[in-house]
Amino acid sequence: MARYDTDVQIIPTSVERLITELEKLPGIGPKSASRLAFYLIKTDNQDVDALGNSLLELKQGIQHCRTCFNFSESETCAICASASRDDHQICVVEDPLDIVAIERAGTFKGRYHVLHGAIAPIEGVGPEQLKVAELIERLKDVDGKAGITEVIIATNPNLEGEATALYIQKLIKPLVPKVTRLASGLPMGGDVEYADELTLSRALEGRQEF
Amino acid sequence: MARYDTDVQIIPTSVERLITELEKLPGIGPKSASRLAFYLIKTDNQDVDALGNSLLELKQGIQHCRTCFNFSESETCAICASASRDDHQICVVEDPLDIVAIERAGTFKGRYHVLHGAIAPIEGVGPEQLKVAELIERLKDVDGKAGITEVIIATNPNLEGEATALYIQKLIKPLVPKVTRLASGLPMGGDVEYADELTLSRALEGRQEF
Repeated sequence: MARYDTDVQIIPTSVERLITELEKLPGIGPKSASRLAFYLIKTDNQDVDALGNSLLELKQGIQHCRTCFNFSESETCAICASASRDDHQICVVEDPLDIVAIERAGTFKGRYHVLHGAIAPIEGVGPEQLKVAELIERLKDVDGKAGITEVIIATNPNLEGEATALYIQKLIKPLVPKVTRLASGLPMGGDVEYADELTLSRALEGRQEF
Repeated sequence: MARYDTDVQIIPTSVERLITELEKLPGIGPKSASRLAFYLIKTDNQDVDALGNSLLELKQGIQHCRTCFNFSESETCAICASASRDDHQICVVEDPLDIVAIERAGTFKGRYHVLHGAIAPIEGVGPEQLKVAELIERLKDVDGKAGITEVIIATNPNLEGEATALYIQKLIKPLVPKVTRLASGLPMGGDVEYADELTLSRALEGRQEF
């Protein structure tokens, strides 16, 4: 159990256990985990307990929204339930966190659909593992009633995201008047000088008239 | 309570609470906190519970070793209790985590003394807030019996650490035959070209004959 090759247990067991658990998190290596654990020992009991309890209670009452598959506290998520959102547009994202980012931008006022991943054959993720069938069902279902006029595919601009976008676009084209993709190009505040070739090519391809 | 300026609660309350708690940790900003929280939702219940419980149990049974003030599960920490360590050397460190780092190096076989900080007048930390009196007591106390021959001051090579080292060195010089300081210089695997001026000056000052 001892973390280092010494004759003695230099880290108390409870601390070592916390370090082991923290190391499992993405972006947290052994050194960050140790630093966090030793920081937490010195922190108020109250704060440590609050963090611990919020972890234990994290999944209580979280479910997928039955319409868009976003994380939700009820059967229908707040965005799907909201009367003030535009029913004509659906934005398709890979993850619930993408919704948070898009909401932060604040310009999109339609509904969402969460795929819960992207097509990645190497990792064994095909369309069946994603909420693709559910998207099609949704488009078919509401087509006549709500009149969805546009599906915006907002998967990540990487290999998996692009493949997923292409795949979905083909499937849903017959079902909806307009299928669009988020623009690729230079990030705002960025620098032409530092842009990679692919981004620059995309920015050129997607250039727009003044 | 809603994290973003929208008309709806886009993040479930339990997730939002976890994000708020995670943001309090050092080195974890709002974006990392969100990413971690959404990662944890997708993680096995078992792993999340293990992390939560290890936090809640973290401080149970952790105390300061009454000799060296390292974190310990018993009155005397494992290093102080070990019979195989050299009683003649005491290494003075700022934090328990420094002991972990030095133990990892594996070359020091003596005992430790944890100050629990460094002198930082601006933050209101003086020698009284540190375990300095306890160090002197320890040196006085064991002087005749155990025969401590060297105190190695291993405070951080920054303003506070240097000030602390100087302060302690003056105090303990009459009590112990030899007081030393960790060498400052180029880090191994580093590059002379990229070394900052201060480090390079120290490396020159501390140069050693072959």
